[in-house]
Amino acid sequence: MDTEKQQIQVDEGFAEVVTLGENDPLLLSSGEFLSPFKVAYKSWGVLNKDKSNAILVCHALTGDQYARGKNPLTGKEGWWPKVIGPGLPIDTNKFFVICTNVLGSCSGSSGPMEINPATNKPYGLDFPVITIADMVSAQVRLIDHFGIDKLYSVIGGSMGGMQVLHWAVDHGERVKTAIPIASTWRHSAQNIAFHEVGRQAIMADPNWQSGRYYEKETRPHAGLSVARMAAHITYMSERSLMSKFGRNLQDREKLTFGFDADFQVESYLRYQGISFVDRFDANSYLYITRATDYYDISARFGGSLTKAFEGTAVRFCIISFTSDWLYTTQENRELVRALNAAGAQVSFVEIDMDKGHDSFLLDCPEMFNIIEGFLAADSEGT
Amino acid sequence: MDTEKQQIQVDEGFAEVVTLGENDPLLLSSGEFLSPFKVAYKSWGVLNKDKSNAILVCHALTGDQYARGKNPLTGKEGWWPKVIGPGLPIDTNKFFVICTNVLGSCSGSSGPMEINPATNKPYGLDFPVITIADMVSAQVRLIDHFGIDKLYSVIGGSMGGMQVLHWAVDHGERVKTAIPIASTWRHSAQNIAFHEVGRQAIMADPNWQSGRYYEKETRPHAGLSVARMAAHITYMSERSLMSKFGRNLQDREKLTFGFDADFQVESYLRYQGISFVDRFDANSYLYITRATDYYDISARFGGSLTKAFEGTAVRFCIISFTSDWLYTTQENRELVRALNAAGAQVSFVEIDMDKGHDSFLLDCPEMFNIIEGFLAADSEGT
Repeated sequence: MDTEKQQIQVDEGFAEVVTLGENDPLLLSSGEFLSPFKVAYKSWGVLNKDKSNAILVCHALTGDQYARGKNPLTGKEGWWPKVIGPGLPIDTNKFFVICTNVLGSCSGSSGPMEINPATNKPYGLDFPVITIADMVSAQVRLIDHFGIDKLYSVIGGSMGGMQVLHWAVDHGERVKTAIPIASTWRHSAQNIAFHEVGRQAIMADPNWQSGRYYEKETRPHAGLSVARMAAHITYMSERSLMSKFGRNLQDREKLTFGFDADFQVESYLRYQGISFVDRFDANSYLYITRATDYYDISARFGGSLTKAFEGTAVRFCIISFTSDWLYTTQENRELVRALNAAGAQVSFVEIDMDKGHDSFLLDCPEMFNIIEGFLAADSEGT
Repeated sequence: MDTEKQQIQVDEGFAEVVTLGENDPLLLSSGEFLSPFKVAYKSWGVLNKDKSNAILVCHALTGDQYARGKNPLTGKEGWWPKVIGPGLPIDTNKFFVICTNVLGSCSGSSGPMEINPATNKPYGLDFPVITIADMVSAQVRLIDHFGIDKLYSVIGGSMGGMQVLHWAVDHGERVKTAIPIASTWRHSAQNIAFHEVGRQAIMADPNWQSGRYYEKETRPHAGLSVARMAAHITYMSERSLMSKFGRNLQDREKLTFGFDADFQVESYLRYQGISFVDRFDANSYLYITRATDYYDISARFGGSLTKAFEGTAVRFCIISFTSDWLYTTQENRELVRALNAAGAQVSFVEIDMDKGHDSFLLDCPEMFNIIEGFLAADSEGT
């Protein structure tokens, strides 16, 4: 990790995986301990001498550490190709950028699919239920491993933004700036409801087998696919679905009066479901959705969001999208209000874009400019 | 049916079922014929001598003919107890009120669960795919059976409102006034998407058995339950879910770090799913959701909603709810605009209520007053 060239060479390769907590178990929110645990990560750019230029990028629900470059598992482009890279908003010529696969997920970090060192079999539901705070605790251990005292910034969209806020609240002394995008400060009843539908779809699949499917030949693909379909609707706006598909028919000139995918939107959704099961583990989906449902940054502070941020030295840049009905601008305004009441330094931008929640993953020059500007403005004072 | 007393006596009994189309097959939108077919209905009040006081009430997706009185199948109160009855907005002292179970449903009218006269076995997926127009065609036959030339009014919420609009467009000469509530003029891409999730959940259930489960001991309850859960979220507003449940825990003081229903909203949704399977047939759910997805009142008019209503003599009263995100006020405004452009007589009321789509089934005095007023104003001119 000492030259940029080396970094660029590994850009499209597999992630690195470190095993941590062997002698120092990770205390989880549940009170359970995890030891040892694995953290899979990718990094780009060069860590400077005083280790002050590190930016942690946090991924969303079903994301992974392959934010940039080709994902070797799927063969597809990473999920933030226009944000991270040389000369891009998160400039790898200036910053050392790390992205970790979150705890509970399925791209190399410890989760239900991984081997339980105590039994030498996959954890399944023996993996402890984790929280966003736990994901962040694992990331803190990785930062320790790198010898980084303070992150220059933590940034992420959706569930990534939840991690960002936990960094600021739980480890505020170790992060300078925080950029939560298209995120929220707690899961609403409707957010929980949609996730519960997904979990019930998975658990209703006989192939789920109470989570013990790893040693069988079958997988709960049908249930996981339905879960993904339901969730995917919440990632798009009504308007974007209408402008993308409307009531257009799929490869046919008229209705077939049957239950095939007559409409393009049906075909698209089915594809979203079917392709998802190839890259994501059903049990991980249970764990990660549970973590987001448990998420409420104000909970430890008697429900006071302001108290959560009292005395913080972290500087915030909050970004939301007008058409995001999963984590709305309204919720982000509540967050901004609390941050202001807590005396925090906070910028807030609502971007007018009709693509819904997933806007943060799309081509959005306004978002790119804001990230670049906020990071640059702050680096001048470094 | 000659005295009110008789009507009241049957008020809580089973519906009547008539068999129609034995010598006159029903031509469906698909081009197929249905013959014979059954229509199950309930009625209240007395049909007057010139048969001019009949009101047809149309039920929603999973509704039935038991709009008023105890539903003998579920033992529960009908779905519009404060709307239909003596002295109520649809006053059974004045009007003869009919509510039919729609074609494709499962409360006595012909549908996939009923016996196919050609095989003496349940239809299953051999039942033809039907449309909202077909549901209305069957209702027209029932009205013929009663000898009613012209309905005083057709009224219904949600899918009931779709039937109302088809009455006005396809059989405008046989209906005087039309009151579609919390409805729309076509299913949007998002509407179709949510229904497709439900259908996929049912069809993913191994107990579905390609629709041939009637002679087995099992039913696709798990899949149907997930379908209902997903749909139910769309019937409530984010705000009503939040004010009703918030992040409140279910019979526990803290999170359990497991996959049980920790949150009240999870428990509530699970209950909605589990209780639904006792009263609704999974195949019927496929058929009825398909009918609504196929629904686009402008389709036969080259996509022109205005043309659909050109020259109509029907008088309309359109009601929508501010918090309905399934069938929005915006869509109802488009309908009102088209009706105005077509020169139709139309009243439009948007009711400010935060309970979401299902508001039309709830205690809403403003809606009650509007229905009562519109029916009364019109009856003066009768």
